[in-house]
Amino acid sequence: MQAPVIDNLQYCNFSERIFRHLREGGVDAIHVTVAYHEDFRETVANLARWNRLFERHPGLILRGTEAAHVAQAQASGRTAVFFGLQTPHPLGDDIGMVEILHQLGIRFMQLSYNTQSLLAAGYLEDEDTGLTRMGREVVAEMNRVGLVVDMSHSGERSTLEAIEAATRPIAITHANPDWWHPVARNKSDTVLKELTNAGGMLGLSLYPHHLKDGPDCTLAAFCEMVAEAAERYGADNLGIGSDLCQDQPDSVVRWMRAGRWTRAQDDSARFPPQPEWFRDNRDWDTLRDGLRGVGFSRGEADGILGANWLRFYETSFGPA
Amino acid sequence: MQAPVIDNLQYCNFSERIFRHLREGGVDAIHVTVAYHEDFRETVANLARWNRLFERHPGLILRGTEAAHVAQAQASGRTAVFFGLQTPHPLGDDIGMVEILHQLGIRFMQLSYNTQSLLAAGYLEDEDTGLTRMGREVVAEMNRVGLVVDMSHSGERSTLEAIEAATRPIAITHANPDWWHPVARNKSDTVLKELTNAGGMLGLSLYPHHLKDGPDCTLAAFCEMVAEAAERYGADNLGIGSDLCQDQPDSVVRWMRAGRWTRAQDDSARFPPQPEWFRDNRDWDTLRDGLRGVGFSRGEADGILGANWLRFYETSFGPA
Repeated sequence: MQAPVIDNLQYCNFSERIFRHLREGGVDAIHVTVAYHEDFRETVANLARWNRLFERHPGLILRGTEAAHVAQAQASGRTAVFFGLQTPHPLGDDIGMVEILHQLGIRFMQLSYNTQSLLAAGYLEDEDTGLTRMGREVVAEMNRVGLVVDMSHSGERSTLEAIEAATRPIAITHANPDWWHPVARNKSDTVLKELTNAGGMLGLSLYPHHLKDGPDCTLAAFCEMVAEAAERYGADNLGIGSDLCQDQPDSVVRWMRAGRWTRAQDDSARFPPQPEWFRDNRDWDTLRDGLRGVGFSRGEADGILGANWLRFYETSFGPA
Repeated sequence: MQAPVIDNLQYCNFSERIFRHLREGGVDAIHVTVAYHEDFRETVANLARWNRLFERHPGLILRGTEAAHVAQAQASGRTAVFFGLQTPHPLGDDIGMVEILHQLGIRFMQLSYNTQSLLAAGYLEDEDTGLTRMGREVVAEMNRVGLVVDMSHSGERSTLEAIEAATRPIAITHANPDWWHPVARNKSDTVLKELTNAGGMLGLSLYPHHLKDGPDCTLAAFCEMVAEAAERYGADNLGIGSDLCQDQPDSVVRWMRAGRWTRAQDDSARFPPQPEWFRDNRDWDTLRDGLRGVGFSRGEADGILGANWLRFYETSFGPA
């Protein structure tokens, strides 16, 4: 079986059009966000919408809950869709919901989005609490059932404490190193070293705000960053989490940022344009060429484009 | 593999004590009610409580979602626990919740309890609407995903219409024929003929209110009724749904009857005592002896005590 292509973070406005792009680009699996600020019932409504998509497009997509579904997707020419949450809000204050969400197919969950959650601090808070008391309990429970801890949007201290508290490797599904593009949302060398030393995965982001020069970032500049990251953290611990938000109206970026926690709404917020070398899911071969161009071997490029995530899936989605 | 013992309806106050009774009685699988009048979120809280029971008693019980789990329980000396709902209230007015509930492990759902639901009429209503418009849609969706329609508490017309509308066999998980004990909760010969002609299953009840002479019903009288039912409806279409409510406080019978739909509460409502020949899960061999005593062959008794439910499980819990 050829190495799979896996994008470990997308939040597109999914439709048959995008599912066809995924096939065109040879993408075998994606991890999609099914909730930001939604509560549990709203999250379930989103899952029900995904059930309808699986029912309507059985030739294009399938519901992914275990690593073997990636091979099943490859063998049948489809894309496996895995679910994740970008906030722990669907949990409420009920630790029993960790296993319930896992039983509903959720495989990744961020302990916080941009602000303080019941579990940890987001990167935009002035004070980083680290893991809260409930946060420590929830990390242990996520480790028990096989729900991956994702710290993409969390603060530095919270992230380091999550790496330390977790007994299984965790993930930063979509972010870049801040030594390459120094914005608060990107991650420090310290965090990335601790993450990968503990066996964790970094999904490199193609979201323009995470890229040097934004939408004007060049493919070569991105791939040179990946080469440097591979030297620092090991090529095996790197994957892609493109954060592609294709076909979303700009109201969605406002929802992502403001949710229902503030009355201040920035009506000028817009999704940035994609870099021209990664417009959408049809451009994975371009990315592969770029990685080969900066000296990655075929095997290393295969790893970064999917085989590393698959290996992580194989050990992360079931009981310890 | 020996024929399994399956009780297709219990609502005990489950505990290690009862799980040990199940092992003592050789019960390989039970279908338990996880919600009466609970809404979706409350139902999920009940499922989370079951998750804790599975975690705490891994040597006694396992979570059953497919027929193969019965054999797994037998092979490991445990009891498989399958989930069901006695009202469709957890669905709300959202048909997408049928598949979500199935994904959460629910395998049986009554279209109504005693009163009118959004889907059908309960047996206590003066007017039986038959299946409502949403009821017809939900039956089709339940048939699609493999969630069994249960009409134990529904009105006669609703039940006949559900049998007619369903494209797969349905169940009456816990009731007796009204020609044996004529109370409104038991079922007419017409209903039972239509049910079983369409391949459906009748789970015979050991709940005293469904028994001739109540708690004083004799084992012989019960088994003679089963023999007559086998003649009328075929022994292969019969199983047991004991409706055992062991260790429940009397407040629970009030909850079952009044839920939150009436302010009238009958504080005198009590659970009736069990007949002496079926005190609890330790008495399944007594029941087997009784069935053999009225002339059932070993194979027929095996069927009624579990093999018939297993065959029904094998074809009912997945997509059509």
